[in-house]
Amino acid sequence: MSEQHIASAFDRDLEAVQAHIMKMGGLVEAAITGAARSLETRDEELAQQVRQGDKAIDALEDLINEETARVIALRAPTAGDLRLVLSVLKVSANLERIGDYAKNIAKRTTILVEANQIGGSTAALRRMAREVERMLRDALDAYIQRDAELARDVIDRDQEVDQMYNGLFRELLTFMAEDPRNITACMHLHFIAKNIERMGDHVTAIAEQVIYLVTGERPTEARPKADNTSQSL
Amino acid sequence: MSEQHIASAFDRDLEAVQAHIMKMGGLVEAAITGAARSLETRDEELAQQVRQGDKAIDALEDLINEETARVIALRAPTAGDLRLVLSVLKVSANLERIGDYAKNIAKRTTILVEANQIGGSTAALRRMAREVERMLRDALDAYIQRDAELARDVIDRDQEVDQMYNGLFRELLTFMAEDPRNITACMHLHFIAKNIERMGDHVTAIAEQVIYLVTGERPTEARPKADNTSQSL
Repeated sequence: MSEQHIASAFDRDLEAVQAHIMKMGGLVEAAITGAARSLETRDEELAQQVRQGDKAIDALEDLINEETARVIALRAPTAGDLRLVLSVLKVSANLERIGDYAKNIAKRTTILVEANQIGGSTAALRRMAREVERMLRDALDAYIQRDAELARDVIDRDQEVDQMYNGLFRELLTFMAEDPRNITACMHLHFIAKNIERMGDHVTAIAEQVIYLVTGERPTEARPKADNTSQSL
Repeated sequence: MSEQHIASAFDRDLEAVQAHIMKMGGLVEAAITGAARSLETRDEELAQQVRQGDKAIDALEDLINEETARVIALRAPTAGDLRLVLSVLKVSANLERIGDYAKNIAKRTTILVEANQIGGSTAALRRMAREVERMLRDALDAYIQRDAELARDVIDRDQEVDQMYNGLFRELLTFMAEDPRNITACMHLHFIAKNIERMGDHVTAIAEQVIYLVTGERPTEARPKADNTSQSL
């Protein structure tokens, strides 16, 4: 019997925890999509579902935290194995934050239903959200398959999200300047855009974890930044 | 010799890691204060210092992560001890995020130096930042002293920060409606206010960790929310 086919108790435990990460990831992907769609189609019921759904995401994070602690206590992993287990905590914390942002977007949707449409902004926000949702899916695939190349690709794509955000920021400024009655709606839309841009940052953090796990190197310094609205008035 | 006076190797290790947490906390407090002061006094040099200082905060988080992994691998803590060690990772992650927000504020300062003053908004932002900085100091004290009561007090005070944010949000809307030339500066100021409000959320998360450590209960559900600008257009 080859050694590769004998899974250790630690490996089995780790796989069980990672299965929960994938489940959590699936819920978060659905929350992103739902939040963006509810905004574009003004679907209050869907927005309400997204808000409710965040509880299941939070519960999974708690479960993952407990299971991780149990694996550490039971198997006392060291070196690379310990790094793997601790990475689970980082990934689940990032997923929880992304879920929170989706919930916050859904909250604003409930209000924006009453407001005037601001150009094509909700469609642009949905495109941004779709890109982040795809990045998340790839980051989690890269995590499970320990695929540093795919993880690097995800990090690169975050620049596109940043560019979409910067374009939308300028567009919203114009709409506000044109008509003061647009200001409040634009402030909420800007808030949503910023939340999606931050989701991208958390997906990037997951991808960086993957690179760290595979190569032992932290790619943080090389990360291209980001929201450049801070560079001009 | 009483048993209480014999510190175990684990206790010594934990204390060493917690000393790094306190150092990190001190740097983050200074970053909050510096960011807010640089904004109010239009001190570009101070803003630059805050931006540079974030590297030391990030480096401390890396160090704490490594030390924590070392303690787990070496001492194989279980149950309550393991919960203590893992809480270090949560607290340092929250501190790192707060440091990031301070850095982002300092970035905007560099731009806002060129802009018109918008009412008393920078003074209001500084008051908000001062409250968050005090909450952080108390949350870290509560953490080191395992003081659940002080932690609860911190969580309560986050409501004041949220109220300050909500008031400022409405003020900025008014300034924008009055004169479109204020719009861009107000967008940046809103961004800063939101960042300070988020810092408060991360301080609250630290205080919640303390309560969890001391009582074993998660106070998350009871946490009063928060930014109510999502409740009105």
